[in-house]
Amino acid sequence: MMAAKADPVDILRTLIRCPSVTPEEGGALACLEALLGAAGFVVHRVKLTGPDTPDVENLYARFGTKGPNLCFAGHTDVVPPGDLTHWRFPPFEGAIHGGLIYGRGAVDMKGGVAAFIAAGLDFANAHGKAGDGALPGSISFLITGDEEGPAINGTEKLLRWLADRDERIDHCVLGEPSSRATLGDMVKIGRRGSLSGTLTVHGKQGHVGYPHLAENPIPGMVKLLAALTAEPLDSGTAHFQASNLEVVSVDVGNPAFNVIPAEARARFNIRFNDLWTPATLSAEIERRLNAAAGNSVRFSPAFEARSSDSFLTAPGEFVDLVTQSITATTGRTPELSTTGGTSDARFIKDYCPVVEFGLVGTTMHAVDESTPVDEVEALTRIYAGIIERYFAAFGR
Amino acid sequence: MMAAKADPVDILRTLIRCPSVTPEEGGALACLEALLGAAGFVVHRVKLTGPDTPDVENLYARFGTKGPNLCFAGHTDVVPPGDLTHWRFPPFEGAIHGGLIYGRGAVDMKGGVAAFIAAGLDFANAHGKAGDGALPGSISFLITGDEEGPAINGTEKLLRWLADRDERIDHCVLGEPSSRATLGDMVKIGRRGSLSGTLTVHGKQGHVGYPHLAENPIPGMVKLLAALTAEPLDSGTAHFQASNLEVVSVDVGNPAFNVIPAEARARFNIRFNDLWTPATLSAEIERRLNAAAGNSVRFSPAFEARSSDSFLTAPGEFVDLVTQSITATTGRTPELSTTGGTSDARFIKDYCPVVEFGLVGTTMHAVDESTPVDEVEALTRIYAGIIERYFAAFGR
Repeated sequence: MMAAKADPVDILRTLIRCPSVTPEEGGALACLEALLGAAGFVVHRVKLTGPDTPDVENLYARFGTKGPNLCFAGHTDVVPPGDLTHWRFPPFEGAIHGGLIYGRGAVDMKGGVAAFIAAGLDFANAHGKAGDGALPGSISFLITGDEEGPAINGTEKLLRWLADRDERIDHCVLGEPSSRATLGDMVKIGRRGSLSGTLTVHGKQGHVGYPHLAENPIPGMVKLLAALTAEPLDSGTAHFQASNLEVVSVDVGNPAFNVIPAEARARFNIRFNDLWTPATLSAEIERRLNAAAGNSVRFSPAFEARSSDSFLTAPGEFVDLVTQSITATTGRTPELSTTGGTSDARFIKDYCPVVEFGLVGTTMHAVDESTPVDEVEALTRIYAGIIERYFAAFGR
Repeated sequence: MMAAKADPVDILRTLIRCPSVTPEEGGALACLEALLGAAGFVVHRVKLTGPDTPDVENLYARFGTKGPNLCFAGHTDVVPPGDLTHWRFPPFEGAIHGGLIYGRGAVDMKGGVAAFIAAGLDFANAHGKAGDGALPGSISFLITGDEEGPAINGTEKLLRWLADRDERIDHCVLGEPSSRATLGDMVKIGRRGSLSGTLTVHGKQGHVGYPHLAENPIPGMVKLLAALTAEPLDSGTAHFQASNLEVVSVDVGNPAFNVIPAEARARFNIRFNDLWTPATLSAEIERRLNAAAGNSVRFSPAFEARSSDSFLTAPGEFVDLVTQSITATTGRTPELSTTGGTSDARFIKDYCPVVEFGLVGTTMHAVDESTPVDEVEALTRIYAGIIERYFAAFGR
């Protein structure tokens, strides 16, 4: 007798009812552990800890022991719901109304998790009887509870935990909400890197009435900030937009109109493409600052330690089978994109090729976050199609 | 029998011992009231009040009823002493060491007050017996306790209080520490005006990874600030330096590296000469901002209500007799200056010609504020010389 198909909508509603506001586990991983354990997955609950950040629960589960190992990655932690009175339906209830499932995490990304878990359960139920030897490879799930938080005790350390146990992942699909307007219109095959820094311009405090006895740091800051953005960093590459620098804050904090301040600080962030590394980019920023400052502006730049490289999973057999599965279900040919913010793919790319594909992200982090029921079901079919095509291409 | 000469050093030490940290009276005006009353001055203690600022004690005293009325103006309030442990001698003791009198207010400006009070007492003692009809005019003192504070319930309102009583002042010497390096090297015959404003640039908040969906206000702010200072406002006039704009703060207050902020604010102050009024200057600032902003930067400028005009007491008979008295005592020819910050002369100039002359200001507002004993005595002789020359020139 065939087992009944797993219902991704049931799984999603169960996950939404777990109040897993980052870094709380909220019962979400326990629920996945029960489902996957019952279907024959070997499940590891991994609590990761580190200084200055909360302890975080994570989960890794695998069905099969042979390679290749196709891994679906994601997170069950969610951002806070904000003011509950603004929600049409309670954010941790999973109400269905007008064809939509409402709840915090519905798209980011309990919806994606529910869909790939359902596809994985169906795969396990279909192959469970045949025994490990008959499997074309393995499928696994790598789920963190620290994607919306500091992202320190999550995917990055969990991957190292796997590597320390010689647990190999061959390809990865990250189920983040990559679709832009309709399900299947976009796959992320890479992400820009991110580098943040702080620029301090030093002056000398004094009275506004006697500017020659003081040294106002603000004109120097204006000059340096103008120089930072005067020339574009590049004009983009085959798969990437142009790199972009945004000055996100300038702060002096001087409450007095009659005082020339001693110091001005600016903070900036750069999203950069595959022409740069954090090292080459910070050198370029320092070059621009030095050129603009000359001998007249005293400044110190400081770059944040936690920068991230760009990455690209170049179009090829793996990307092709993902897009074919999307097209087979939706009729759409997804755009292969490298836009947007960073994701945990920045950690995964150090271990294996990774693409990101999931629901439409429009309502993520917003009040009334919601996703159509039929898109969760369609996404499950796409993930199932990816599993099928993956083993047809790479399986043994 | 001639009365003994008044001792300005004694008066100064008495005043320093009154802890009149703005807006506290601290006993300083009570002390002056007693001294002046005993010498035949008509003394008014005037408490001035207003919304949102502390009540302030002020004093007006006059000897004689005829015109012309030569007024000496000043203040007995002082700035706070700061950390007492940094002082070599207690700030409210009036210690004398190595020929210097130490204490908060020694130069700014209890020293000046003590000197002109002593000169005034000597004048009253010399003429007291002769009766009012024999006087060449009157001398008066206008002393506020609100120069170092908001300056709202002080000189400005006290002058209106006098005007309401048809009390006329003909010429005024403000005893602020105008000397730069040595007593008598500088007289202030005018001051630049002051205009403050806040510039807000409006944008649209968003994620750094999707800059096309946001509108960063900081590049616009950089552009506007560069435009504000690109061209000098003027190149100075016969008696004034060039007008000068200082941006004193830029603030965004965005703590996140991945968020493009919604708004940026800058605060500026302009010290301007007699080519401008607050109205013409704010119009010029708006013109520059509009020209730089074009259609691409959305901004709102706001000017502070409490601006002050520039003023000039043009060289002539009154300025001449002040400089002659300085030269007679010190051997120096003072520079006629209009530099530096604002003072209460900005209010007095609406009623009569005013010049500022007093001690060397080097230690004002600083720890170990102090003035040489012999300069307090010399300043007293200069003020006495001004009184003598004033009545020789203008008296009846």
